[in-house]
Amino acid sequence: MNTLIKNAYILTMDDKDTVYENGAVAVEGEKISYVGRVEGLPVDFHPTRTIDACGSVVMPGFVNAHTHLAMTLLRGYGSDMNLQDWLENKMWPAEDKLIDGYCYWGSMLGIAEMIRTGTTAFLDMYFFMEETARAVEETGIRAVLSRGITGRTPGYKKALGEAEALHRGYNNTADGRLTVMLGPHAEYTCDEQSIRQVVELGHRLGCGMHVHIQETVPETKGCFERYGMSPVAWFDSMGLFSCHTVAAHCVTASDEDIALLAERRVHVAHNPGSNMKLASGIAPVDRMLKTGINVALGTDGPSSNNNLDMLEETRLAALCAKVRENNPTVIDAKTALAMATANGARALGIDTKCGSIETGKNADIIMFEASSPAMHPRIDMLSNIVYSAGSSDIAMTMVNGKILMEKGIINGIDLERVYYETDKIAAAICG
Amino acid sequence: MNTLIKNAYILTMDDKDTVYENGAVAVEGEKISYVGRVEGLPVDFHPTRTIDACGSVVMPGFVNAHTHLAMTLLRGYGSDMNLQDWLENKMWPAEDKLIDGYCYWGSMLGIAEMIRTGTTAFLDMYFFMEETARAVEETGIRAVLSRGITGRTPGYKKALGEAEALHRGYNNTADGRLTVMLGPHAEYTCDEQSIRQVVELGHRLGCGMHVHIQETVPETKGCFERYGMSPVAWFDSMGLFSCHTVAAHCVTASDEDIALLAERRVHVAHNPGSNMKLASGIAPVDRMLKTGINVALGTDGPSSNNNLDMLEETRLAALCAKVRENNPTVIDAKTALAMATANGARALGIDTKCGSIETGKNADIIMFEASSPAMHPRIDMLSNIVYSAGSSDIAMTMVNGKILMEKGIINGIDLERVYYETDKIAAAICG
Repeated sequence: MNTLIKNAYILTMDDKDTVYENGAVAVEGEKISYVGRVEGLPVDFHPTRTIDACGSVVMPGFVNAHTHLAMTLLRGYGSDMNLQDWLENKMWPAEDKLIDGYCYWGSMLGIAEMIRTGTTAFLDMYFFMEETARAVEETGIRAVLSRGITGRTPGYKKALGEAEALHRGYNNTADGRLTVMLGPHAEYTCDEQSIRQVVELGHRLGCGMHVHIQETVPETKGCFERYGMSPVAWFDSMGLFSCHTVAAHCVTASDEDIALLAERRVHVAHNPGSNMKLASGIAPVDRMLKTGINVALGTDGPSSNNNLDMLEETRLAALCAKVRENNPTVIDAKTALAMATANGARALGIDTKCGSIETGKNADIIMFEASSPAMHPRIDMLSNIVYSAGSSDIAMTMVNGKILMEKGIINGIDLERVYYETDKIAAAICG
Repeated sequence: MNTLIKNAYILTMDDKDTVYENGAVAVEGEKISYVGRVEGLPVDFHPTRTIDACGSVVMPGFVNAHTHLAMTLLRGYGSDMNLQDWLENKMWPAEDKLIDGYCYWGSMLGIAEMIRTGTTAFLDMYFFMEETARAVEETGIRAVLSRGITGRTPGYKKALGEAEALHRGYNNTADGRLTVMLGPHAEYTCDEQSIRQVVELGHRLGCGMHVHIQETVPETKGCFERYGMSPVAWFDSMGLFSCHTVAAHCVTASDEDIALLAERRVHVAHNPGSNMKLASGIAPVDRMLKTGINVALGTDGPSSNNNLDMLEETRLAALCAKVRENNPTVIDAKTALAMATANGARALGIDTKCGSIETGKNADIIMFEASSPAMHPRIDMLSNIVYSAGSSDIAMTMVNGKILMEKGIINGIDLERVYYETDKIAAAICG
């Protein structure tokens, strides 16, 4: 299948932020064989299908750099509660009732939502990850999965075994759309011995780490009490950052933490929506970016967000930074969009495959239509996308050269069945 | 035309927050003749049309309590700039080029966007208000219009004359959908003499006031330097609050300001999106509500937001309050939704007509469908709307008993023409 997208306003999100006002993208099989001005399209390219994208904006798909996908099953369960109350009385009791099969349907619901809202790749941390892997394989989306490793000695051993099994079973499968990281949950749910073994396993498998760091003030204070240092410093002292690491949150990161994260080339996944909703605070992402850290964006789990809409997260990233720094010029539209795409791909370790529209990369592409009033007038298309559009303005989602959604219709997912199953499961585990 | 909406999950937003899980709304002409359980529907009600809302949520339409509608024409012009730079080098030069006819098309674009995203009434402040009035009349939306009165003595006299003419020409027209307020712009753009004359005119016409108060720190500091008091205290000393007043922003309101606003029964229009984007700060709305102030929500002008999406504003109101107060329990989903509906109607002085679904009120109603993944599972429909849905989940917008939008199709507005005209105007006035 060869697809030609032509007459588009193309935001390539490449290193030079190249924009083509009347551009074309040629997709041959899984790969992009040409991106540039329409006039430069190779004459020997013969598309099976041509999409006239006149008036539309074409850009790389969103990369969700931190979520807990199957928590779609708990969406809306216990809103507006204190964190500890919500965890102890809502989330954990419900999660205790998760059994085989549930997380497959939760993953299908979440993937359907992501495909509809233009996300083409995501980094996940949860349980029952084989079920999420199956959903990734079936639906055509791209993902990096990590089995959450919580529990102090010796509880972690089972999880560690499952994490290794996940890597052996699924890393680099599904036509290369699926890779695996390790998921040590957080400082307060692990201990020295378990983290050292996770690091050892990471080196043995040659895989990355996906971890929560400094999401809240109590977590950070607790680590200082336990170890006399911040969680960033503690994970560094454990050697975690010798592996490629994605650190979710970093809300409480101090200047010292930021310097250390930069030195160790740790990737940060910023989750503004979840951090606001749980009243955790606003992470100092402007400072992080200025220190050279690669900052990506994530939605966090859909039970604390409560959706998987990366366009919303992109807008929040820009708005939150401005109000935090008391400066409307920080995190401009272009920077926010880079965080949601190219930076995300770098964080997930898949930037040779996706994150920008460049010849030779896999075709993970979305298209915004200008059919809704919010997309007009067309003074600044990039600003319209970041500050005005809704994710329903996304009219096409392509992963690995395959169109997964077009004009709101998601291909290959039986939504009615997914709604039926997830409603039934939610009723069984909540309340 | 009689319409029956049945089998709906109805959030009435009445004083008791009544919810009907399997409810019906009967609309006779412009009015709601019944709301309640399906079984209680009067047997003598004969609908012309029946909408089966099974699985959907029916609620009052959103009320946008502060905007500058025709600034849709400037959407995306000068994003991510410092306020003064943006005003002096982008907004004001462009506004100087506004001529007859432009604001009609800008208003049509804005109204189309509002109808699509479930807003059924709005409070506006701008120039060329007769053109906005014409757009309101033609499209079927409900509005309260105010001609912005800026300029110190004697520049205000022309504006004051136009404001009075607007009131005489349009107050209580368009089947009662259109009323008029006066729009003294702000303390820093008016002076004592002009404000006193505005107040006098307000009393003579018996109409409300729509004003900007304490949007930014520099504005507030400037007022202290000029008058030795805050803008809230200054407007009070001028007697403004003896009229029904909607005060937009109030970001810098102190405890004393809040006490005074409460005592004078001033309505506050909170604009979290614009306040974040311009880095003005986050208004202390939790404290305002606890002091008994009626706090409504607005988008502000679409050039500083950059859209007119009240669902987004509702979510931001909840998220901003949580992160500001460091407390996830403040401004829960229900409170945020009340701010966006019933509180808005009160602020606009039209709460006898709309803002809730109650027998005898005009039928300003919207319907959320559960066809998108973000609306599932259906654990808590109110939470799903406030924290998960997108405005594209709104499948029906009704004002005054008339369906203005259904399944994304806006009735009676030629969108292609509106896009053509607004693109052309934007090209003429920007850059």
